Amino acid sequence: MSINYTNASKIELENEYAQCKEKYDALKAQGLKLNMARGKPGPEQLDLIGDMLTCLTPEDFKGLSVDARNYGELTGLSEAKALFAEILGCKAEEILVGGNSSLNLMYDTVAKAFTHGLNNFPCPWHKLDKVKWLCPAPGYDRHFKVTESFGFELITVPMTPTGPDMDTVEELIKDEAVKGMWCVPKYSNPDGITYSAETVRRIAAMKPAAPDFLLMWDNAYCIHEFAGDFVPFEDILTLCREAGNPNMVYEYASTSKMTFPGAGVSVMATSEDNLTAYKKLLTVEIISYDKVNQLRHVKYLKNKENTLALMKKHAGVLAPKFACVLENLEKEIAPTGIASWQKPTGGYFVSVNTLPGLAKRTLTLTKEAGVTMTGAGATFPYGIDPNDSNIRIAPSYPTVSELEKAMQVFCVSMKIAALEQKLGK
Amino acid sequence: MSINYTNASKIELENEYAQCKEKYDALKAQGLKLNMARGKPGPEQLDLIGDMLTCLTPEDFKGLSVDARNYGELTGLSEAKALFAEILGCKAEEILVGGNSSLNLMYDTVAKAFTHGLNNFPCPWHKLDKVKWLCPAPGYDRHFKVTESFGFELITVPMTPTGPDMDTVEELIKDEAVKGMWCVPKYSNPDGITYSAETVRRIAAMKPAAPDFLLMWDNAYCIHEFAGDFVPFEDILTLCREAGNPNMVYEYASTSKMTFPGAGVSVMATSEDNLTAYKKLLTVEIISYDKVNQLRHVKYLKNKENTLALMKKHAGVLAPKFACVLENLEKEIAPTGIASWQKPTGGYFVSVNTLPGLAKRTLTLTKEAGVTMTGAGATFPYGIDPNDSNIRIAPSYPTVSELEKAMQVFCVSMKIAALEQKLGK
Repeated sequence: MSINYTNASKIELENEYAQCKEKYDALKAQGLKLNMARGKPGPEQLDLIGDMLTCLTPEDFKGLSVDARNYGELTGLSEAKALFAEILGCKAEEILVGGNSSLNLMYDTVAKAFTHGLNNFPCPWHKLDKVKWLCPAPGYDRHFKVTESFGFELITVPMTPTGPDMDTVEELIKDEAVKGMWCVPKYSNPDGITYSAETVRRIAAMKPAAPDFLLMWDNAYCIHEFAGDFVPFEDILTLCREAGNPNMVYEYASTSKMTFPGAGVSVMATSEDNLTAYKKLLTVEIISYDKVNQLRHVKYLKNKENTLALMKKHAGVLAPKFACVLENLEKEIAPTGIASWQKPTGGYFVSVNTLPGLAKRTLTLTKEAGVTMTGAGATFPYGIDPNDSNIRIAPSYPTVSELEKAMQVFCVSMKIAALEQKLGK
Repeated sequence: MSINYTNASKIELENEYAQCKEKYDALKAQGLKLNMARGKPGPEQLDLIGDMLTCLTPEDFKGLSVDARNYGELTGLSEAKALFAEILGCKAEEILVGGNSSLNLMYDTVAKAFTHGLNNFPCPWHKLDKVKWLCPAPGYDRHFKVTESFGFELITVPMTPTGPDMDTVEELIKDEAVKGMWCVPKYSNPDGITYSAETVRRIAAMKPAAPDFLLMWDNAYCIHEFAGDFVPFEDILTLCREAGNPNMVYEYASTSKMTFPGAGVSVMATSEDNLTAYKKLLTVEIISYDKVNQLRHVKYLKNKENTLALMKKHAGVLAPKFACVLENLEKEIAPTGIASWQKPTGGYFVSVNTLPGLAKRTLTLTKEAGVTMTGAGATFPYGIDPNDSNIRIAPSYPTVSELEKAMQVFCVSMKIAALEQKLGK
């Protein structure tokens, strides 16, 4: 049983340090090679859906309104649009079904805003001196990288337990150079926070100074509960329309964590007006997306109800992994008082906040003992966490017994980092 | 039997006009709805490969060096790289295996040159006042559109029977603002011309003033013979390397006309240096491409020999269609002297050059009689054919009996256009 580091005496801390060091060295000596870096489904999840590979036969192409085996249907197969509209709660006319990657669709949207300009843009952003972008943080490193790579100035917005700090957001969007914001509204990456109804409504009702403000709504974990039943979530397109912002939002999702990661189907949802304009830009870029895979997904997932049943199977694999992470944190770290964490019920991550100045050192120790985790700072713009505090744990890939080991390494590493700091080592 | 329009008397021409008009009206009355607009494989070709849909099973993923069902391998599955390296004649290390669309990869390359800059670029092109681009024409409309959409100035380079006019090219590239050139080196779109060895060597040895000159080498029809055996073609990467231009060329191909159009696999080949730099940009855009579909293609296509055998089956479907087009042109148009055309042995098009000023009118008449063809001018930059002469015929989609009808409509439409011009109607 650990001691509380704040109240402990120097001797108690020295003693704890010696014990932790011994445990750490023993774990390190095992030559572990474990990975908790990425939100990557584990092999058991992929085994669940093996029959998807052969579910589509030539017979399935008969009687469709288009030959899904051939070129055409730039915005996707109507059957796939219907499936995603049901899952997201928007209209099928608002859907573009894309290729294997929603990140790719998001990049493409930002890129087109930069190179050509989207619907109703005064001009493409490459003609502007300065583009600023709101990044609720901790957030998804790949989102931040997209906007960083185009040279935008990233502005950190604090996350609260109900989503981005909207007072801050509403102040920042008075600047016309602020052109957009990243959001992961349900089971946010990495906090696992679901934005409150109030936050979502304030977002939908924003009045940015920029007429070309892009609300990038990455609904990556829209049906990704691993504890409990599906939690309904309001359709952002409807809310934006009702708030007089019909063209402000572009929503994204994918099947990467329903079927095969990186071999699934992505989707973008936006107003019909936006989609009409987007289609004109898209026709220069691609003839059509992979409709054979779209049809395979329609055949396999069928509808929302059936897809939710599949997500329950994924949850059956994921829940014990998240439980393992949380139990270890509760047992090893809670008594020490050196960190706090979220207890998500969906998504792919557990977000830990250490006392200031411990994240980098913790992850260095973890890595030296053979456990790879998301780099410190990755969850903040430019990879710089001002408090050196946030750590993202991705428990989905290892087995539970591997996780058990990895969490032992992680917890003892964090303790050592804290003790080094306290004891000036 | 038609008469030669140049030598004929006014009475003969009036007589011919009346006959053509009668034939045209009779065809139009049939209410045809035929399409020769796009290089789209026909349903018979897609039926050939139906068993590809179910060829990949969970067993096939065992024993691979990576789990192809999961994220990872940004530049593609090594097995797929090996297959394409064999087909293209380059090294596997020079290959990026992408998603379902080579047009998308090409767009992406040009877009990255514009937004971020590629390997060894002095700066991204969006910072330049002017970018000029060489377009051998007639050429592929979608190529031209990509570079047009980024605001580049398109410069037409005449096509000759051995490829782009290299004297012109070598003169134009002395201008540092000229940043690249589109090429379809084998069975060019639309002419069906294969660049001569001499032309290819001159291209590889170019010394452009621009250090960031991009040779965009779209080897779309690399193994797409429909008459006779596979014709070997030199590897452009090797030639460029030997000529001291290792980083000038980016080559593209896809399986869209081997397996399912728009549901296949695309490939980019470029120097290892270029690829290393490209990968850094790509990691911001996508996590990985669809490796399940890559593996499906590896399992189905196996190797070059087996792929060439499949291409023979496609040729069996395509050859009678091209024969139908050429026979109709020979019989109906050759005697009149109003047009000339290429007689390709591979690719997807027949390119017809009418006497000046006839293309638009021909295609208006064709369309009014229910036959859709690629728009006049599409094969030139900005969609403007200075001679209003080039027409692209895409015979792959209709059946032979539909083609027979469509070609009757086309030939009589061209005759009417010529007679209207001659007779001042």
